[in-house]
Amino acid sequence: MELQTIPARFGVAIKLDLGSEIVVTNTHGTQVLDTWAFSMSDPGEYMSMEHTRSRLSKLSPCAGDSLFSNRRRAVLTMVEDTSPGVHDTLLCACNQEIYQELGCGDSHRSCESNLHEALSTIGIKVSVTPAPLNLFMNIPVASDGSIDRRPPESRPGDSVTFKAEMHVVVVFSSCPQDVTPINGVDCIPCDAHYRIKH
Amino acid sequence: MELQTIPARFGVAIKLDLGSEIVVTNTHGTQVLDTWAFSMSDPGEYMSMEHTRSRLSKLSPCAGDSLFSNRRRAVLTMVEDTSPGVHDTLLCACNQEIYQELGCGDSHRSCESNLHEALSTIGIKVSVTPAPLNLFMNIPVASDGSIDRRPPESRPGDSVTFKAEMHVVVVFSSCPQDVTPINGVDCIPCDAHYRIKH
Repeated sequence: MELQTIPARFGVAIKLDLGSEIVVTNTHGTQVLDTWAFSMSDPGEYMSMEHTRSRLSKLSPCAGDSLFSNRRRAVLTMVEDTSPGVHDTLLCACNQEIYQELGCGDSHRSCESNLHEALSTIGIKVSVTPAPLNLFMNIPVASDGSIDRRPPESRPGDSVTFKAEMHVVVVFSSCPQDVTPINGVDCIPCDAHYRIKH
Repeated sequence: MELQTIPARFGVAIKLDLGSEIVVTNTHGTQVLDTWAFSMSDPGEYMSMEHTRSRLSKLSPCAGDSLFSNRRRAVLTMVEDTSPGVHDTLLCACNQEIYQELGCGDSHRSCESNLHEALSTIGIKVSVTPAPLNLFMNIPVASDGSIDRRPPESRPGDSVTFKAEMHVVVVFSSCPQDVTPINGVDCIPCDAHYRIKH
């Protein structure tokens, strides 16, 4: 498959068959990608960060780990990660209300609206916004439980490969955050890319 | 209001008006209470652990902190906490699939089924099981991101007081976990109690 674009500030929905692999690349190195996966046979079953933390007994997945659904089944396996492995499972997707808090008004794009917009392009509607896997998002946790927001540690061209453990739709959102430096100190959201391997 | 019981292994749903306060007591000291709150005017707006961590920039709330909804509004404020303050926001509610993993068969009670059973007693149906606030649950996070499951640090009679910041239904589930020592080393779920102050 040709390289496909996840346009800066937008989301894409991608259907994957059981066993397919997808490589998602942080082309410019600084872009956070909010990531979701829903079962195609029942979108009420979705990749759950709270179940994944419970199954893995750790905050964040590493290469070799699967990510689990709210029904406790493997949804995706992170088969390879060429980045430093700094990803986040703790924070919500940005939404309209967050941008209102930040003084951006009502029309700022968000990962939450990107999720639902992307799903609608393939005829899927879900009533919730699950907590996303925030690929490349750098949220260190201090020993007192406080959490910080720092620029990504990933580098241009770093990629993560996922294998589908069921028939799923995966959504990647190129996070539109341009107020805080979560997408790098320049605060400029960028394109990212993906390719389905087989 | 008289003291009310949250029976061991069961859940209760309690409507609270804006400004009401509720005191929930860990009567025997070792009982984890999975806790949810939904807006009465729109149960699609609910207390969200991922939004609460984002708003507070920390893993877990302390006395004085509010807990926030997926629409970013304060739902409850933890106005007092007489316990050592060890609570969890990271782990999912236990569900049928977890007890199957633990070899307990299909009929073991769970916090997930307690949530939906309790809401049904007041005519509310929701399609999701949000990540709960796990009161008194002791989930230490190590510096490498690994998480452990330990008996509660709370003591008999410790209590947490919440103030309702909107018209809500609160659900407490006395966690039925009796395989791992999350409810104390005896692995025996216990009653807990609550009282609406005003």
